[in-house]
Amino acid sequence: MQEQDGHIKVVSLLSGGLDSSTLLGYLVSQNYSIVALSFNYGQRHRRELRAATEIANYYKVEHRIMSVDLRQIGGSALTDSIDVPDINVDSIGKDIPPTYVPARNTILLSIALGLAEVVGARKIFIGANSLDYSGYPDCRPEYFESINKTFNLATKATVEGRSISVEAPLLNFSKADIVRLAEKLHVPLELTWSCYRGGKKACGTCDSCKLRLKGFMEANSVDPIEYERYPEFYSRYLKSR
Amino acid sequence: MQEQDGHIKVVSLLSGGLDSSTLLGYLVSQNYSIVALSFNYGQRHRRELRAATEIANYYKVEHRIMSVDLRQIGGSALTDSIDVPDINVDSIGKDIPPTYVPARNTILLSIALGLAEVVGARKIFIGANSLDYSGYPDCRPEYFESINKTFNLATKATVEGRSISVEAPLLNFSKADIVRLAEKLHVPLELTWSCYRGGKKACGTCDSCKLRLKGFMEANSVDPIEYERYPEFYSRYLKSR
Repeated sequence: MQEQDGHIKVVSLLSGGLDSSTLLGYLVSQNYSIVALSFNYGQRHRRELRAATEIANYYKVEHRIMSVDLRQIGGSALTDSIDVPDINVDSIGKDIPPTYVPARNTILLSIALGLAEVVGARKIFIGANSLDYSGYPDCRPEYFESINKTFNLATKATVEGRSISVEAPLLNFSKADIVRLAEKLHVPLELTWSCYRGGKKACGTCDSCKLRLKGFMEANSVDPIEYERYPEFYSRYLKSR
Repeated sequence: MQEQDGHIKVVSLLSGGLDSSTLLGYLVSQNYSIVALSFNYGQRHRRELRAATEIANYYKVEHRIMSVDLRQIGGSALTDSIDVPDINVDSIGKDIPPTYVPARNTILLSIALGLAEVVGARKIFIGANSLDYSGYPDCRPEYFESINKTFNLATKATVEGRSISVEAPLLNFSKADIVRLAEKLHVPLELTWSCYRGGKKACGTCDSCKLRLKGFMEANSVDPIEYERYPEFYSRYLKSR
């Protein structure tokens, strides 16, 4: 992580999940001047937007919710009526799952770039992490390196000498590392929402729930949010504590 | 321009203006299988979307209109209540004008990338041209070179070996070159709309109208669409014919 870099204006993508919420907590601890940016992209449930709003309010940062309807593109279990799969936690990261949304990070970061230019932000933060990247091509380090070069050519701001960089400081963090960081920073994890399904409680069976619970387990901690049912490995872990 | 490359599926951005309409006519002549993609991005007038629809219908190609509200970003005369300026035609290309929309091409191409992935397209075409690029940073050759590298890392399709490239075949064309190509291809220029203002007739004074008329003049031709009033240079030209 970088040195204290206070009062620089930044845009930080905030889905309301574990990663982006921890990232926000980190940026707050570093005294950045933050615009948190969430997207209503036609996700099948809005539960995560509620989480994002609660977390932005908790941290008292400016929060924008922008609309871009990725259902118009289709091709994903997160926006279409394709089923969100129950997944074997060991297969995560090996294949690109049906929850992949075509070009999502590229689209969302591009919109963030426009906003960063208008509000005068110097950095765009995203909570992507590659160790548990669940097979998404647009969460890989080489992807972020390249989009930084493109963004550096793309705007009036950069042409005029004000560079806007994309930063993914959690890129090499495991979920367990993120849980540890969140706890150290006292991030209100009880407000976060990672589940791909939109029930009253997190499902506990989609790959996002399983990755999250695996992270808490490996960090030797307990997830404060409620689940419909725990996956086998997490039930065993709770009993063993 | 490249060789005949028929039946390959492509996405082509279609604003309904001179450049993108001519590009579409060219792609039709090359027998590409085309999905024309227009954006409702909150532009202050919808006149250009009507033009895009008429041109797509003329060519009988599939046409999608996707919404992404760039007013949420702000910072442009095309989406905000900032005045569209009357411009001196000699200054075009020197400064970045207020009609610049922050990160527009990056956002629109990113959404096109998602669509290309879902429909199985191999190329994304955009009618950008750099000679008359009116100072937009995201119309420069080095920008397109870089975004191609980024897109090549961004999607499941490319990870699986199906590359999706961004092509800007008009990049080194002047407006006069584009008018000549359009006339050679019998593009229905009377259906196109380039004006930044949304009147019944094109205004004739915004930079887009002036660039267009300058192109017709330099191609020794006459623009078939109606104007509120011609700029001085074009009136003189018409009288001299």
